[in-house]
Amino acid sequence: MESEFDLIAALRERLPSGGDGVLVGSGDDAAVTEGGDTPTATTVDAIVEGVHFTLPAFPPRAVGRKALAASLSDLAAMAAQPGEAYVVLGIPEGTPDDLLLELADGLAEVAEREGVSVVGGDVTRSPALVVAITCVGREPPNGRLVTRSGAQVGDAVVVTGELGGAAAALELLASRDGTEVAAPDVTREALLARQLDPRPRIAAGLALSVSGATAMIDVSDGVGADGRNLARASGARVEIEAQLLPVARGLRELSHSEERALATAISGGEDFELLATLPPERLEEARAAVGHYGLTQIGRVVAPVEGHDA
Amino acid sequence: MESEFDLIAALRERLPSGGDGVLVGSGDDAAVTEGGDTPTATTVDAIVEGVHFTLPAFPPRAVGRKALAASLSDLAAMAAQPGEAYVVLGIPEGTPDDLLLELADGLAEVAEREGVSVVGGDVTRSPALVVAITCVGREPPNGRLVTRSGAQVGDAVVVTGELGGAAAALELLASRDGTEVAAPDVTREALLARQLDPRPRIAAGLALSVSGATAMIDVSDGVGADGRNLARASGARVEIEAQLLPVARGLRELSHSEERALATAISGGEDFELLATLPPERLEEARAAVGHYGLTQIGRVVAPVEGHDA
Repeated sequence: MESEFDLIAALRERLPSGGDGVLVGSGDDAAVTEGGDTPTATTVDAIVEGVHFTLPAFPPRAVGRKALAASLSDLAAMAAQPGEAYVVLGIPEGTPDDLLLELADGLAEVAEREGVSVVGGDVTRSPALVVAITCVGREPPNGRLVTRSGAQVGDAVVVTGELGGAAAALELLASRDGTEVAAPDVTREALLARQLDPRPRIAAGLALSVSGATAMIDVSDGVGADGRNLARASGARVEIEAQLLPVARGLRELSHSEERALATAISGGEDFELLATLPPERLEEARAAVGHYGLTQIGRVVAPVEGHDA
Repeated sequence: MESEFDLIAALRERLPSGGDGVLVGSGDDAAVTEGGDTPTATTVDAIVEGVHFTLPAFPPRAVGRKALAASLSDLAAMAAQPGEAYVVLGIPEGTPDDLLLELADGLAEVAEREGVSVVGGDVTRSPALVVAITCVGREPPNGRLVTRSGAQVGDAVVVTGELGGAAAALELLASRDGTEVAAPDVTREALLARQLDPRPRIAAGLALSVSGATAMIDVSDGVGADGRNLARASGARVEIEAQLLPVARGLRELSHSEERALATAISGGEDFELLATLPPERLEEARAAVGHYGLTQIGRVVAPVEGHDA
């Protein structure tokens, strides 16, 4: 929502955000505060029916999974370890109880898998189904929470896993009600899972912190947009080479052209992979630490151009 | 929403809520967790257009004030000291920027008055205006966070301030577009403020903790319903004497009958006063500590009746 970007800045300007104990404020994946002796990273995210998901293409269980996974992805991008979650449910009049219980099962599935406790919440009426989640994370064992703002000129730009799969899954979901998209079943299921069961890269985030990541962000708006966000926060420029992008398996087949597949990999949102920067000499160590998710160098950090914003 | 009460229990049952470091889970005013050495109390609350407020009867600035004040009231009810806030805004298409900036000014007004930092947030599209707030509070200086569950048989039941004013204010707001309700201007303004500028009882919550409060809850659903909530959590029974209730100034005049005024004081919601229990011998100390807000004994805690729930 480009038109609201300035709004966010305007809102931020009006709200007191300093205060003792606030180490990283609004504008990163999560806020970092220091209450006792251990910093905590806290993130809030809302998903809204008709905006982030549609029923019934999205089964209610998948809505619950996506809501919590998207929130945990913000913690992963700080290398924070998941702690507690707080859930606000806005429920339209006449919503069947079964639907809400399935949604809760989806939340519980991700919470159990990722070791999160759901310790608070609020239920209210709302004209559309809203799931707003607050997640609190703890400092990782190595004590290095990673922000968006530490990228250094000369760093390698890396991304975990594959890109564009979540955008392709949206097309597949839409095609269920209309024209069929030709794709083998295995590919289809793997792509659909990017929307219906996205996996926050918690372990990869920690691995990248341990391997010296200087800056990190999760890929929720597309690697192009999120690369610009990271670059802006770091006061540097990020150069990404399109032909290096790890295009999701099946995306090329679905796209019918290399050009279209790359465009989806660059601008497709909600992949929830991690985009990070790190010194090139630590690249192999990071690749080994991230392991089976895969880690691909897709570019490098260069000096900002005078008079240009990132 | 009585029909959703069972739903909340059903949802709670499905979600993992244990975990190391969780001291008080879902079902109190705020969850209490221990990350480092200091417990934190965290609460989430959402207010939704058409459910908790209507535009334009509620000026946008008042929406912002009410959203944050309602959330801080939950912290007050734990005797927690306000720390950080996280704001989720759900914004309908076509909402004027001015409206959102005024709303932000209302949030900022309360944040500054109460010493809160707004350190994170999320802005999304939504079919109705939604403001969901997460507030994190710290352990009070005396180290005594107060839950709902500690009431002891023999305790006095006390309430801060006045009751029924917020419900009366809703009537006044409604009457602005229709029949006029006769009320002197000063009374009218004082009552309207209960909706348009509610004050979380942070200082009174701390005073009650220091004065030995055994259980505490904020009066958001009416003193009758919240008394039952506190009693249920404590495994005791709360007896409230209607004629002892501190009826809001102006409410009797508006109600035209003593009976109706008392009914509003008992069942009217959103007063955001504190309902607490404490040993009767500490009542005078508590009254002195709470000071100018006022503290009234309205009943006592008695043994539960066999086979009855609270």
